[in-house]
Amino acid sequence: MKVNGKPCRTIWPHPDDPRIVQIIDQRHLPHRYVIEDLASVADFATAIREMHVRGAGLIGATAGFGIYCAAITAPDDPAGFADWIAEAAARLLKTRPTASNLAWAVSRLRSAMEKEEGVAAKRRRAFAEAQAIADEDADFCRRIGEHGLAVIREISRRKNGRPVNILTHCNAGWLAFVDYGSATAPIYAAHADGIPVHVWVDETRPWLQGAKLTAWELGQEGVPHTLIADNTGGHLMQHGMVDMVIVGTDRTTRCGDVANKIGTYLKALAAHDNQIPFYVALPSSTFDWTICDGIRDIPIEERSGEEVCFIKGKTAGGGEASIGIAPEGCRAANYGFDVTPARLISGLITERGVMRAAEEDILRLYPERG
Amino acid sequence: MKVNGKPCRTIWPHPDDPRIVQIIDQRHLPHRYVIEDLASVADFATAIREMHVRGAGLIGATAGFGIYCAAITAPDDPAGFADWIAEAAARLLKTRPTASNLAWAVSRLRSAMEKEEGVAAKRRRAFAEAQAIADEDADFCRRIGEHGLAVIREISRRKNGRPVNILTHCNAGWLAFVDYGSATAPIYAAHADGIPVHVWVDETRPWLQGAKLTAWELGQEGVPHTLIADNTGGHLMQHGMVDMVIVGTDRTTRCGDVANKIGTYLKALAAHDNQIPFYVALPSSTFDWTICDGIRDIPIEERSGEEVCFIKGKTAGGGEASIGIAPEGCRAANYGFDVTPARLISGLITERGVMRAAEEDILRLYPERG
Repeated sequence: MKVNGKPCRTIWPHPDDPRIVQIIDQRHLPHRYVIEDLASVADFATAIREMHVRGAGLIGATAGFGIYCAAITAPDDPAGFADWIAEAAARLLKTRPTASNLAWAVSRLRSAMEKEEGVAAKRRRAFAEAQAIADEDADFCRRIGEHGLAVIREISRRKNGRPVNILTHCNAGWLAFVDYGSATAPIYAAHADGIPVHVWVDETRPWLQGAKLTAWELGQEGVPHTLIADNTGGHLMQHGMVDMVIVGTDRTTRCGDVANKIGTYLKALAAHDNQIPFYVALPSSTFDWTICDGIRDIPIEERSGEEVCFIKGKTAGGGEASIGIAPEGCRAANYGFDVTPARLISGLITERGVMRAAEEDILRLYPERG
Repeated sequence: MKVNGKPCRTIWPHPDDPRIVQIIDQRHLPHRYVIEDLASVADFATAIREMHVRGAGLIGATAGFGIYCAAITAPDDPAGFADWIAEAAARLLKTRPTASNLAWAVSRLRSAMEKEEGVAAKRRRAFAEAQAIADEDADFCRRIGEHGLAVIREISRRKNGRPVNILTHCNAGWLAFVDYGSATAPIYAAHADGIPVHVWVDETRPWLQGAKLTAWELGQEGVPHTLIADNTGGHLMQHGMVDMVIVGTDRTTRCGDVANKIGTYLKALAAHDNQIPFYVALPSSTFDWTICDGIRDIPIEERSGEEVCFIKGKTAGGGEASIGIAPEGCRAANYGFDVTPARLISGLITERGVMRAAEEDILRLYPERG
């Protein structure tokens, strides 16, 4: 998608130096647009853990390039190479426990390298596979956009061309993937298709991904949007001001339960209570095929309470600062995700189409997992 | 309740100067404890509109003293006096549209003054009536505490003495009333009674009343508590970490629908989905006896989007500052309240007892409104 009018992805190999991978350091958005060079496994681990990059697809793509980085910085002898890769994989896997794309990408890179003979071939294969993950992620999101567009077009038809009001939570935009986004892909596709859309953007405390990232990227694309506190969606739905909800997911079970940014479950309840369609958009890399009951079996990341008690933003002078909003020494809890049960979800939008959030419907589109 | 160990109310006549009423300017909490003098109707209107004071009961008490202030600053001739009072009443009524205590207190003061002959008698009566509203508010909240204590005691008994986890939204604490609070009164009563309680404090965006006020007052009283982002409650409820919810209300219909701080409805949905008791605590001054359907008939205040896009807090240097969290020029919507329908409410706790949120049960305790 576009930054200052120019097409851009969220992660890419440095055009002149194969040892470097570049990302947008998203911690500084929307106030500053900062490109960061990643050149060591430690750089990649920090970038994921400290949320320079975040979001299901982008965490996967970054982990893929992280293993590539491990491959090109590893010792040349085969035993040392293997140990180095194993250690890098363990290090990357520890950074964020909820995202299933992370383990998926690491495992995909390792399997691909195992198929090659010799360190040099493994290195070439690591680059190709990391790049393939990034390209597939972008392609899958583009296809999610096409399938979701049909859903939005149908709502627009029923509204006789009045704007379709779409609520989204957190950032499942292109900044959360390599390009297009998952939840935003149908919105961008509708906007490009001339369907009038308006997006209610949940600010998404504590990290404020909605206010800082989703509002920014919608603004860059010229999509009409309004920022709201996370508390607001229920009221809007009660008063007919929301036509549909689209969110992303960090891990989806084979039965259709969805782990997404904390607060998603509350919006799903409100949508259900007001008979408003609630869709979850995801590339299939987000499925965890090994589990069914998401509330029981998806590990939920706990982060520092500091992220609740202190908020980062832009000062009147234009700098970045962190301010305290709670009494000194106040204890805070910070769960990163919650699980929305399949019963509250109108449909899943994946690269293969739209389906009910139910095991048999999911397996109909993914028969190879049956 | 206590500030730095000393008993305190939220509004009181200046001990040495009858022309001045004093309040805690709550905008500076929890970082600074600031007392403000109010000496003109303009001071009172600003204090209510700009949220130096807020909360159902305290808005009512402040409006009462505001009319008292109008009475002592009005011209001495009867016609001029009446015009002055009418103008002051209109000015105060415009400040916050959702709170029903505001209109109730203004009307109570005016009716009381009408019963007196002569400006001097009207002035004396205005003071007595404003003080009576404040005293009744404190007394009603104390009684809410007694009735709510029985509910908490029963949950504690079922938990065999393990801490009762209570989630609250916004600040319906003593800072929202004259003393004790509504939602917090049962918590303070339980704590004083030796029942172990722990409070999950919703931070309550955009104004952050939970983080800034509820966390502060619970800390001053030594009640164990944990601050959370508003998005968190659903996850906690899914995992058995919440035993009950208690919130306040700014306007309650005769059928039991409740307007409270935006986001309350989402917590009520989550409590309902997880079979967790959801109580609303209120002095009867909060009832609007003229309406039944709260979603249709309670006006919902819209405030400036600036309150969403900019957050006030304490800087590393100890000062107060406002930081921007959204892209420049981002549009934001800011609805102050939402309505929780009676069907989601386990019970109302008023100064007369605990009742179902249903017209016939409410009227059984308030037969004079039947």
